[in-house]
Amino acid sequence: MTAYPETLTAQNRVPSLSEIFRPVNRRLSQVDCTLRSWPGQTSPLLRTMAARTISRPGKLIRPGILLLITGHLGYRDGQDILLAAAVEGIHLASLIHDDIIDRSTYRRGEKTALQRFGPDFSLLLGDFFFIRSIARSLSVRDRKIPEMLAEAARMMIEGEIEELAESYNFNLSRTRYLKIIEKKTASLFQTTCRLAGRLAGAGRKEVKALEEYGLNLGLAFQVTDDLLDLVGQPSRTGKPTFSDLREGRVTLPVIYALKRADRSSRHKLESSLHNIKENKEAGDWPQLLELIKSTGALDQTFGQAVGLAGKARRAALKLKPSLYRQSLLQLIDFVLWRER
Amino acid sequence: MTAYPETLTAQNRVPSLSEIFRPVNRRLSQVDCTLRSWPGQTSPLLRTMAARTISRPGKLIRPGILLLITGHLGYRDGQDILLAAAVEGIHLASLIHDDIIDRSTYRRGEKTALQRFGPDFSLLLGDFFFIRSIARSLSVRDRKIPEMLAEAARMMIEGEIEELAESYNFNLSRTRYLKIIEKKTASLFQTTCRLAGRLAGAGRKEVKALEEYGLNLGLAFQVTDDLLDLVGQPSRTGKPTFSDLREGRVTLPVIYALKRADRSSRHKLESSLHNIKENKEAGDWPQLLELIKSTGALDQTFGQAVGLAGKARRAALKLKPSLYRQSLLQLIDFVLWRER
Repeated sequence: MTAYPETLTAQNRVPSLSEIFRPVNRRLSQVDCTLRSWPGQTSPLLRTMAARTISRPGKLIRPGILLLITGHLGYRDGQDILLAAAVEGIHLASLIHDDIIDRSTYRRGEKTALQRFGPDFSLLLGDFFFIRSIARSLSVRDRKIPEMLAEAARMMIEGEIEELAESYNFNLSRTRYLKIIEKKTASLFQTTCRLAGRLAGAGRKEVKALEEYGLNLGLAFQVTDDLLDLVGQPSRTGKPTFSDLREGRVTLPVIYALKRADRSSRHKLESSLHNIKENKEAGDWPQLLELIKSTGALDQTFGQAVGLAGKARRAALKLKPSLYRQSLLQLIDFVLWRER
Repeated sequence: MTAYPETLTAQNRVPSLSEIFRPVNRRLSQVDCTLRSWPGQTSPLLRTMAARTISRPGKLIRPGILLLITGHLGYRDGQDILLAAAVEGIHLASLIHDDIIDRSTYRRGEKTALQRFGPDFSLLLGDFFFIRSIARSLSVRDRKIPEMLAEAARMMIEGEIEELAESYNFNLSRTRYLKIIEKKTASLFQTTCRLAGRLAGAGRKEVKALEEYGLNLGLAFQVTDDLLDLVGQPSRTGKPTFSDLREGRVTLPVIYALKRADRSSRHKLESSLHNIKENKEAGDWPQLLELIKSTGALDQTFGQAVGLAGKARRAALKLKPSLYRQSLLQLIDFVLWRER
């Protein structure tokens, strides 16, 4: 098993997102333009808020995946740009609302909407993006598509509700954790792939492989996100470390640490977690991290991410080889080895 | 001009909502059941939250209007129940989010979702209802219908953003106020009528009359709501008085009072408003109300509501006479004379 935090230094082997998305980079900027056009002419304030929120150096991962898949399938109709914008809009809405719930002031090194506009405006801005994204997806001719998108949004919200309900539950099981991140994160990845396949007229088997790719990539994405929250460099992730624990989110590394710890470590761990619950402070965060590391929980968590990535890879390899498939495969490495 | 607060004592002349909606009461309870079924089987917590939120003694005004119109037009397909639930779901989502923004603890005499579940769960519960309502409306065969509903939701959110941006702007003009309440409140009433007409296959002229009815009824509804916030009995409205001013919402009575006040009253008014802006306290609320009353602003505001009600009435009278039209007409009186 690779020792996790050390692996991050190997990150320079991994291509950057703009390299990975090179086959669709020009089209990704059209997605960006489309998103920007949504607030329309009516409300200058809304336009300003939306522009400042979109203009964060977003990674546009979901639109990128969507366009790679439609590219791979030789789709030529242009409705994929609109759909990619709708998917990103749903993601953006959920980020804006998540930041309110988590009281996050920074994301990707930029001020969050919460920090810029306050909770009230941010709440309404998130609502706007939710509604607008579903509404715009209605222009796609296939009417199953908006249904699937709305269904993914609903799953995401349900996942967030369930996660919130499990706050500070230090007995959270691995199974329940995986179920929650499937809803909260992986369902939108999976739906992105499903929608791309459907729009481009992929066959049943191909759609199934795409869904498998999306689901496992999404799960791996959340697991590495949880790791980065512990060991990422704030200068690279653009957000402070330990935000999950501070907000009472029990993630896989903590679940594993509690399971693997010997009696004395478990006692220290629990007392730290209890302290966080009571005071939102662990006292000594670096010490807590060392404790988690010492149980081997980070390595085991990374092992889980590697396993999910393997599933995503095997699914992608069911597609016929192409430049686009190459990017989809590289993206798996990116998700695994990223530093942000 | 009728002196406004006194007119409220005449309220017993006005039929109750359950009398008004008698022709559709049985079908309204189907709307209620439909709404309750939306959280589905997956998330017990979400189901509980949704049930407790829906179970407030809601007035179901928008669904009632929708069903009265489809009844009037002889529609028999049953899709109007679903659509009425979707409209109410959008309204519910917006109430839940509004209560977060306004920090409202009571509405219609019941605890708000905010008060029951806290801001984080309420935020996600509102998101759920927004997404679910649009998603469910996709089952209606006419695909223009979800588009119109999403458009109304967008308008509503834009109206709320604009209202928020005008907080504590004591120079707000009547024109701008009317534009904001048109977006924030009247657009969903108008769309409800438009959707009902379209679903039931009304002719172009009939749809136009229905839209006029909905728009003006919605405007009158908001204007009387603003009056009730000043002179309503909390025991009847189910919420505290002066919440608008406390939150910095400048409503028509205040706009008129500032315009009509003589120099000395205007000075007192402005100093009260300044006090609210700084401390969220007017010092002496009853005195502030007396000051507003003394300018004749309440009567003028009520006059405005009467005017809008008249427009709604003239629009409704363009429809052919029926039991349902009778209810639509009674509803105008209800909106004007209601105490809650």
